[in-house]
Amino acid sequence: MTGVPWMPVSAFDALNWLGLLAFALAGALDGADNDLDVLGVAVLGVVTALGGGITRDLLVDRTPVALTATADVLVVLAGVLVAVFLVRNGRRISTDSLAVQIPDAVGLSAFAATGAIVAWDSGLSAFGVLVCAMLTGTGGGAIRDLLVGRTPGILVEDFYATCALAGATAFWLLRSAGAPRPTGVAACVGIAFVLRALAIRYDWHLPTVG
Amino acid sequence: MTGVPWMPVSAFDALNWLGLLAFALAGALDGADNDLDVLGVAVLGVVTALGGGITRDLLVDRTPVALTATADVLVVLAGVLVAVFLVRNGRRISTDSLAVQIPDAVGLSAFAATGAIVAWDSGLSAFGVLVCAMLTGTGGGAIRDLLVGRTPGILVEDFYATCALAGATAFWLLRSAGAPRPTGVAACVGIAFVLRALAIRYDWHLPTVG
Amino acid sequence: MTGVPWMPVSAFDALNWLGLLAFALAGALDGADNDLDVLGVAVLGVVTALGGGITRDLLVDRTPVALTATADVLVVLAGVLVAVFLVRNGRRISTDSLAVQIPDAVGLSAFAATGAIVAWDSGLSAFGVLVCAMLTGTGGGAIRDLLVGRTPGILVEDFYATCALAGATAFWLLRSAGAPRPTGVAACVGIAFVLRALAIRYDWHLPTVG
Repeated sequence: MTGVPWMPVSAFDALNWLGLLAFALAGALDGADNDLDVLGVAVLGVVTALGGGITRDLLVDRTPVALTATADVLVVLAGVLVAVFLVRNGRRISTDSLAVQIPDAVGLSAFAATGAIVAWDSGLSAFGVLVCAMLTGTGGGAIRDLLVGRTPGILVEDFYATCALAGATAFWLLRSAGAPRPTGVAACVGIAFVLRALAIRYDWHLPTVG
Repeated sequence: MTGVPWMPVSAFDALNWLGLLAFALAGALDGADNDLDVLGVAVLGVVTALGGGITRDLLVDRTPVALTATADVLVVLAGVLVAVFLVRNGRRISTDSLAVQIPDAVGLSAFAATGAIVAWDSGLSAFGVLVCAMLTGTGGGAIRDLLVGRTPGILVEDFYATCALAGATAFWLLRSAGAPRPTGVAACVGIAFVLRALAIRYDWHLPTVG
Repeated sequence: MTGVPWMPVSAFDALNWLGLLAFALAGALDGADNDLDVLGVAVLGVVTALGGGITRDLLVDRTPVALTATADVLVVLAGVLVAVFLVRNGRRISTDSLAVQIPDAVGLSAFAATGAIVAWDSGLSAFGVLVCAMLTGTGGGAIRDLLVGRTPGILVEDFYATCALAGATAFWLLRSAGAPRPTGVAACVGIAFVLRALAIRYDWHLPTVG
């Protein structure tokens, strides 16, 4: 998810890394809560952080970046180690706390933008752009939920994937109208993050159909 | 799943679209029955209809058609909208009713043929043809089952995937014997559909082993 | 998983086939224990034996070997048939018995080596080599667990995936130091098998984090 050439490392990559750290931390804490062993905790952290991007890379038919690059993996392992340290020392942090939720929202927004970029560059349709943005942002968490036996949270309870879809819609509209990539990325990240922050603040949920 | 060049849109494509509509409808109704939110209902409809074909495309190493073409996606969204409309207006339709089961059987048969075609054209073995036909016809429903926490229905209870396997076997035998593609497709669709219709009519189930 | 050109069929391929047989047998027995129908039993055997290698092939972006080659598939089907025969005749064999556990350990070790080879040849990072070795050795069993509604056993209870990771680490270190492939493979298989055998003998488990 790194290596986008048109932006300095200090901006977009930093957002991605913060997101990877938050995703890995939340996933590993979830693993500890479900009484997994140390390998299970590490796998859950890695899957939560990297699973969405790997799924996206499979869809656009390329070898997952996470299996060839190393920077992302080191960030993820750092997140897992922090989680293990916290749990071993009588954890004071909940995955519902703002200290996890805000970096998680950053990750969701940055990952959605990365997914939209990859899908756009691969020539996918508008639907394909939305699918890749949503999967990159939420696919890792969904796989984590399945691994511990839950229906993925994004399907039942929250205003979460919707933020990625809204950001990716803005990206697609702007790019289709001829806007340059940084504009599309900024809109995607901004819209997704603001929506997610509002959803956390005001406890938004999507309605059910019935 | 569209764009097969050797047959008019009015025949094979129509079967595929009817199947996509039925799969999307049944998946979205299932989502509503499981109290998913509106996004979850839409995702379940989309996954049920497109998940099998996407899995098949991953196996034969190409970007999923569903992420680049648009006609299929519009049909699927129509199926989801019909489901939402039905649920909101005090649904009168069950996924067990013939109004869903017959189009579903059409979809199963057409999808099995599509899977067999793609696998054959990709040079897979007989086993590969069977796997792709079964996954295209039943993979979306299996992913749906996993997402809502059920063991995939095709593994436990029904005479369903067997119909796709029988049709694909006929396809492979005919093609290996030199028959032209339309002959193989017609045999695959015909055999799968007739078997499925008989299974619905006479309530066939596969035996267990013990 | 066959066709590695630098070793006679009688050595590495034989290990792989023994593993495929054991994995298919254990998977099919598990399916029967979960009251799946005959198709479900067959699918569970096939998925357990071939699912890990197929997942690995998806990650390195190639059409799964299992869908183009035939020798592996025949071995897997033999394993399924043995399981069905055993169940129908009042099975005397448990998946916990050494008659299943030892061949299973051979399969785990050989599959880990195959995964490490494929990942190395595809130019993946050290992390990618570990992921592919672990997935090839344990991915099929994890998918099986998910299909019957369990959290994958490798995440909660056992000293199993750890053996594959240790073997793959040795492979990567040796290859990075310039050792020829057979040396790396022998070290991977040997270390993974000995660790797994010790884990069975002394009932090793990984600790939990809390």
